[in-house]
Amino acid sequence: MADHLFLRACRREPVPRTPIWMMRQAGRYLPAYRAVRARASFLELCRTPDLACEVTLQPIDEFGFDAAILFSDILITLPAMGINVEFPDSGPKITNPVRTSAAIEALSVPDPVAATPYVMDAIRLIKKALNGRVPLIGFAGAPLTMLTYAVEGGGSKDYAHTKKLLYGAPKDAHALLEKLARTCATYLEAQVAAGADCVQLFDSWGGIVSPGDFREYPLRYAKRVIEMLRASPAWRAGGVPIIYFVNGCAPYLDDYASSGADVLGVDWRVGIDEVRRRVGDSVALQGNLDPGALFAPPAEIRTRVADILARAGTVGHIFNLGHGVLPETNPEHVRAMVEAVRELSAHT
Amino acid sequence: MADHLFLRACRREPVPRTPIWMMRQAGRYLPAYRAVRARASFLELCRTPDLACEVTLQPIDEFGFDAAILFSDILITLPAMGINVEFPDSGPKITNPVRTSAAIEALSVPDPVAATPYVMDAIRLIKKALNGRVPLIGFAGAPLTMLTYAVEGGGSKDYAHTKKLLYGAPKDAHALLEKLARTCATYLEAQVAAGADCVQLFDSWGGIVSPGDFREYPLRYAKRVIEMLRASPAWRAGGVPIIYFVNGCAPYLDDYASSGADVLGVDWRVGIDEVRRRVGDSVALQGNLDPGALFAPPAEIRTRVADILARAGTVGHIFNLGHGVLPETNPEHVRAMVEAVRELSAHT
Repeated sequence: MADHLFLRACRREPVPRTPIWMMRQAGRYLPAYRAVRARASFLELCRTPDLACEVTLQPIDEFGFDAAILFSDILITLPAMGINVEFPDSGPKITNPVRTSAAIEALSVPDPVAATPYVMDAIRLIKKALNGRVPLIGFAGAPLTMLTYAVEGGGSKDYAHTKKLLYGAPKDAHALLEKLARTCATYLEAQVAAGADCVQLFDSWGGIVSPGDFREYPLRYAKRVIEMLRASPAWRAGGVPIIYFVNGCAPYLDDYASSGADVLGVDWRVGIDEVRRRVGDSVALQGNLDPGALFAPPAEIRTRVADILARAGTVGHIFNLGHGVLPETNPEHVRAMVEAVRELSAHT
Repeated sequence: MADHLFLRACRREPVPRTPIWMMRQAGRYLPAYRAVRARASFLELCRTPDLACEVTLQPIDEFGFDAAILFSDILITLPAMGINVEFPDSGPKITNPVRTSAAIEALSVPDPVAATPYVMDAIRLIKKALNGRVPLIGFAGAPLTMLTYAVEGGGSKDYAHTKKLLYGAPKDAHALLEKLARTCATYLEAQVAAGADCVQLFDSWGGIVSPGDFREYPLRYAKRVIEMLRASPAWRAGGVPIIYFVNGCAPYLDDYASSGADVLGVDWRVGIDEVRRRVGDSVALQGNLDPGALFAPPAEIRTRVADILARAGTVGHIFNLGHGVLPETNPEHVRAMVEAVRELSAHT
């Protein structure tokens, strides 16, 4: 498995072609996924290893992606901390947002195996089902992103509650981030112990702050997670690659590589060649087609794939979208992207 | 008036201190504004010159900002084009989103004086009321930003409809952007003719695309507006400064200065010193405190103001927030920011 295309690219080793997977590849754009969801709620999918396994494998079977990613949700760890999450179709909602010192103090740092046994069961099941075909990526939400959900109670336009906490009560913010970082690190460690071949830390809302605040909050606690994970016995046994993805990374390129991750995720709003120039050669890069570009005709998708491949170069690049695939996407356009990457990146 | 601090800074002329104003400075954070809104709806405020004048002047009287900005809304021009807008408290809503070639073809390019006479009346009234105290900034939404509202029908998380149009039907997208650009240019021309001392083009959603698409869509049509405006008799008579503001500008710094604007707005997510390095010395910069930083205690606000002043330098800088002030902001914290800028930027 360590020789697989995707894992070699994560380690910046030479590869015969650029590997590709897609954020949210097991998701609503796929008819086979919608068929499963017609029988079970989102949360049932996450909590039922058989179903999580089934939808995780769908895009591998359908398009031949070079990595599978565990079907789950970054918020799945919150209830065991004491934060109640609901998953209506309109998006996740937290019924008891955390906005006071007392509420932060009351939160637990759960044992991930006891709290989310179904996640570890799903990983073992998926690994067995994949049978070495492609690596399996585990994942978690990065501390700052988890904080925004915990504090806002859901999505937000301006992150006013988050910023009230970060700037108005920084001691409380750090206390909450530390608890989230410890939860995140042990959760990822358990995923690695269960068999994940790689883990990705999603900082979907890491891009809402100034460069100084990026160092003080999202980056600092992503580093903390990565350090704790690398120090764990489970990680040391396998040394799996760690991906850190900040959505909206362009303002932070001078600091981004200091996260300690092996691979940096790159959203679609910035040129991946500029990212490479600014972060240097010590990390692999993953990205960065605009998910909306999959609305273009296949010929245009191919042109855009070629442009990204040319900018990214042949070493240390994993092709991906710059964010999750949009539910309205035509699966045939996904296939056009995958084929373009396979054909155009082949180093003959 | 041409000698006013704010206008001199727009032209990169030496100033005794850095001027300051604040996006959404006439708004909900201000008790005096909320008192007026208790008597009138948002749309009534926009359409009643006396009321628009009253709220425009409130922050000037209260904090001594160095520029006033017309109280209005970027969507105010849409109904005359054939796009119906409502303004409930939850945010603007378009009841007939534009998503087909036929719908785009049916749109008008209205005469701004006939379509929004109350805007021009408000400008004349505000100019009289200001009586030369500070310059008055007029404004409009930039074409790409107006397109997102017209197409999505309101705010959006992922701009799927916008991207379907841009990438799936680029000819239609260009046709719509051209109509929006012409509407925008004549609307700004009319504001200048009515007495605006400066105009700002808001590209609030210009930051949702890749660098290549930034050149093809938001930047291209902002340039088009600025060229048309500069060619107009009203603009040629006074030569008022033009500000172009892209929220989320960090990925586009190599191209940003080519907009043709005199001043570039800078959001809070990027260092204003990095922006200066990348855009060169031909333009002034406006920004860039995180609106959320006003939740910090006054001493921390002062530290952050000092940091931005040091990064921006003394020539060609207008202090502002990096986006609109948040409604939950304490007005005394706004005062602390204004005082810090006045004191710390004084060149003795």
